[in-house]
Amino acid sequence: MTLINQQIVLASRPEGEPSAANFELMETKVPELQDGQVLVRNHYLSLDPYMRGRMSEGKSYAQPQPLGEVMIGGTVGEVVASKNTAFAVGDMVVGMGGWQDYQLVDAGQRGVLQKVDTTHLPLSAYLGAVGMPGVTAWYGLTQIIAPKPGETVVVSAASGAVGGVVGQLARARGARAVGLAGGREKCAYVTEELGFDACIDYKQHPDLKSLSGALKAACPKGIDGYFENVGGMILDAVMLRMNAFGRIAVCGMIAGYNGEPIPMANPSLILMSRLKIEGFIVSEHMEAWPPALKELGTAVATGKLKYRETVAEGLASAPQAFLGLLKGRNFGKQLVKLV
Amino acid sequence: MTLINQQIVLASRPEGEPSAANFELMETKVPELQDGQVLVRNHYLSLDPYMRGRMSEGKSYAQPQPLGEVMIGGTVGEVVASKNTAFAVGDMVVGMGGWQDYQLVDAGQRGVLQKVDTTHLPLSAYLGAVGMPGVTAWYGLTQIIAPKPGETVVVSAASGAVGGVVGQLARARGARAVGLAGGREKCAYVTEELGFDACIDYKQHPDLKSLSGALKAACPKGIDGYFENVGGMILDAVMLRMNAFGRIAVCGMIAGYNGEPIPMANPSLILMSRLKIEGFIVSEHMEAWPPALKELGTAVATGKLKYRETVAEGLASAPQAFLGLLKGRNFGKQLVKLV
Repeated sequence: MTLINQQIVLASRPEGEPSAANFELMETKVPELQDGQVLVRNHYLSLDPYMRGRMSEGKSYAQPQPLGEVMIGGTVGEVVASKNTAFAVGDMVVGMGGWQDYQLVDAGQRGVLQKVDTTHLPLSAYLGAVGMPGVTAWYGLTQIIAPKPGETVVVSAASGAVGGVVGQLARARGARAVGLAGGREKCAYVTEELGFDACIDYKQHPDLKSLSGALKAACPKGIDGYFENVGGMILDAVMLRMNAFGRIAVCGMIAGYNGEPIPMANPSLILMSRLKIEGFIVSEHMEAWPPALKELGTAVATGKLKYRETVAEGLASAPQAFLGLLKGRNFGKQLVKLV
Repeated sequence: MTLINQQIVLASRPEGEPSAANFELMETKVPELQDGQVLVRNHYLSLDPYMRGRMSEGKSYAQPQPLGEVMIGGTVGEVVASKNTAFAVGDMVVGMGGWQDYQLVDAGQRGVLQKVDTTHLPLSAYLGAVGMPGVTAWYGLTQIIAPKPGETVVVSAASGAVGGVVGQLARARGARAVGLAGGREKCAYVTEELGFDACIDYKQHPDLKSLSGALKAACPKGIDGYFENVGGMILDAVMLRMNAFGRIAVCGMIAGYNGEPIPMANPSLILMSRLKIEGFIVSEHMEAWPPALKELGTAVATGKLKYRETVAEGLASAPQAFLGLLKGRNFGKQLVKLV
């Protein structure tokens, strides 16, 4: 039987804002399995902001996504054929399957495919709170911000897959968690469902003075840690409110992904407030994954760590879902359901 | 006998660039010594960029210098009268005597006055390479940049009291040291006398592209550590050349001291290059002083650590010498000789 594999490839690089025209849906035949290989039917595809960086050429922290090749992306799925003794048909696995229905993988390479337990956790959690976004939140919070009880931690994109976990982990450590999110509904979710102490709707504060005032009201004792997911004016406003010896973990700068650099208004605050600002990419800190996944998995399984998913249906919906993610249209973790 | 004490007080706060009119020379009588007090005849006054920050009101890392009071400043001098058993007439001491000829001090307060050894080191060294500027260099280099052998460390204001020590300490640790200084003469001093591997005359590179090109030529393997003394365009140019996991120690931002914030052009490089940027003030890290002073004192006494001084004569010359320091007119450590 010949299996048909639907794939989405990068057809062209965006100039400025990306569009659906940058992607192309292709069909190929799944080749015969070779010894050592495993065929996975992808169930969920993860969509993440970092993919925007890969679409462009030029200096970034990773190789650009090659043109004409399947878009990179994290996936969870089921082994449907195996010529590798470490994997059996029916195993549920997490890997980097890309934007396609099937993933044919040389499963002998270390870490390329990992079996996951779906009796205590839903499969999709391994792409979110118990996957790369969760570990990202854990690393930035515990290894860079390292909040003490009673300190205040602010996180932007607080309703997102990373930000939501940051605030909940901060609260579990006795810190005050204050989110920034776009819109009343997201803010209500952040405080009521995720349990943050406060959430600021940045859309109600279009200028630096207004946003800085909102931060002052929400953080009466100042800000000790900031988990940065967006950059731009929000960073400037937070820096004005940072306490001495504050820590800023720089995880993302969505605002700058389209190529136009967005300046930091007042870097002399780094000296005035003796700040530490550190950029990081979680895939470069593999030592953090086991302790992070242990805490995150337990917290999700016991209902202490909450998250939400936005699920697009079918591979063809991936480009529009991704463009929506870049505009903040998703709510929590953005997934594409393939099965 | 009544001693007359000449003092320079802050007469007014600068609006924008400071001028001589902000200072006023006063004369007062030295009061009678009380029990526990020590009278010091100041021999040298230290002039340092941080004093600019103290002249203004508003948020800074320290209390503003009060109007009408003697300007703050480090001093070395000789005990000329003592009602404190810990100090005898003739002792040479370092302290924060301020811009004045005599300092009357309650010497019982811990750390307010320290005896120094002038048999192995010249008295003025305790205001420079073996004083606050030296410890500042030591802290930023060893505790934040922490260079590995073979790495490249760049330092701005490289001919200054702090920058010159940074590069020499970096070289002592097997790193490549590249300075930035203003003018051919200063650059020659940095490479020929201080032994840096290279020095860039930033006055020859008035725009970002030109300066970035010069940094590329001087740092063929990129930049791993940057000791920041100035801010502004130099910081932007250095950031473009930083290697992954580079460290930036922020010690000063002279360019911003006059109140106008100077933006950082491309903060997304913090994420792209996974940089760590940390501001610090050496007086908040007292644990660093003993090991720093030990290394610095030995290196100066054995001739391994070199420095230069610019010495203004007489207290009345202090304001002009300070204004010149802010414009980079000094060469090495700026002192005022009072005796």
